Amino acid sequence: MTYCVGLLVDTGLVMLSDSRTNAGVDQINTFRKMATFQRNDRVLVLMSAGNLGITQAVVNLLHETSVGGDRSPKIYRAANMFNAARVVGEALREIYERDAAHLKDHGHDFNGTFILGGQIKGEEPRLFHVYSAGNFIESSTDTPYFQIGESKYGKPIIDRVISRSSSLAQAAKCALVSMDSTIRSNLTVGPPLDLAIIRRDEFKLATHISIDFENHYFKMIRERWGFALQEVFSELPNPDW
Amino acid sequence: MTYCVGLLVDTGLVMLSDSRTNAGVDQINTFRKMATFQRNDRVLVLMSAGNLGITQAVVNLLHETSVGGDRSPKIYRAANMFNAARVVGEALREIYERDAAHLKDHGHDFNGTFILGGQIKGEEPRLFHVYSAGNFIESSTDTPYFQIGESKYGKPIIDRVISRSSSLAQAAKCALVSMDSTIRSNLTVGPPLDLAIIRRDEFKLATHISIDFENHYFKMIRERWGFALQEVFSELPNPDW
Repeated sequence: MTYCVGLLVDTGLVMLSDSRTNAGVDQINTFRKMATFQRNDRVLVLMSAGNLGITQAVVNLLHETSVGGDRSPKIYRAANMFNAARVVGEALREIYERDAAHLKDHGHDFNGTFILGGQIKGEEPRLFHVYSAGNFIESSTDTPYFQIGESKYGKPIIDRVISRSSSLAQAAKCALVSMDSTIRSNLTVGPPLDLAIIRRDEFKLATHISIDFENHYFKMIRERWGFALQEVFSELPNPDW
Repeated sequence: MTYCVGLLVDTGLVMLSDSRTNAGVDQINTFRKMATFQRNDRVLVLMSAGNLGITQAVVNLLHETSVGGDRSPKIYRAANMFNAARVVGEALREIYERDAAHLKDHGHDFNGTFILGGQIKGEEPRLFHVYSAGNFIESSTDTPYFQIGESKYGKPIIDRVISRSSSLAQAAKCALVSMDSTIRSNLTVGPPLDLAIIRRDEFKLATHISIDFENHYFKMIRERWGFALQEVFSELPNPDW
């Protein structure tokens, strides 16, 4: 499986993805699930979950140049983030037309979902969740994050600590805690992690790093969070039943 | 859905179940998912998840008296917990024979799983997970707990704080924290909760209570755990990226 989480706060976006793929337990591999698109007026980060053949095909299609006129890939020409999400959805539908029937012949569902976050000049930063059908939803003030893949283990901590007014640093910290809980409980999610941070109105990636278990900050989070949880747990009064 | 968790520690067992069932979002009801079997030499607690028609039929079958000889239900006559788990598995297979084809005609899978915990004189307390197929596994020192239903949200906290040497009070506290995380993140799990505690070598339920949001201890757990998590989270250093 996969775990990716994207958080939208007032000051920007945090996107975090793992890199483990598996087809059965004896075919575990490392593939990056984050793609970035940067140009003067825009910065976009796309994360994917599902069938790797599908999601890689979509990302390749998004990088392809068009014919005639402005030959730059469509995603660089989308007037706003809504249209950029449509470009992703359309690419997914193109791959569906090409592959879905063949996948079905071999007993596989067509399964590919994306989180798209970014900012295009003239707009606020925005965050979208694109479904396998190519349609999508946008995050709201009440739900400032999206998860794809193995989302359940790491959801409670986000629900408890993140709101739109959280800082980017808090959002990055929360994404890493959420990822740590997922990695500990599910073998199919694993490092290295890709972390991208977009600061509002900068139109470039503020941070784009690869994190493994040797990363000092992630190591500290893993140790201290686990330890602190155990402490908090032991400080809660026991029941007297 | 449902969430049930059973924890086996050196001094006994903690079993906790929610009571929400849903068939679509407009048919949400409250049904207890915990059944108990007590007699001089034994105490057993059974929790269920899956199709309510199936799991209720199994529990009814387990309560049914036999014909001829000792007429008490089989589960009271099982010589040990392994055999008691077989009695549950056999009841499940009997319901499968009766219902599975009809369910299939209507597009429903045969889906019913159980956690069985308890102690029968002559043995230690034991904990089993019975699958829809009627087969089962037993918990081990490395994995001293089983979950059924919506298990992912509440798994990380158990993995972090519980081992076989935890006390019964700690196990009960952990089960409630795990349940709280699940309730907050998933609408299909809800109170009232049923909590049963079995103390080793007592051969009766030490505690068997119903817990709702008004319960003082659960209320305290909900408030203080959430608050403490937020505090621990804010005390963790932010990244300097």
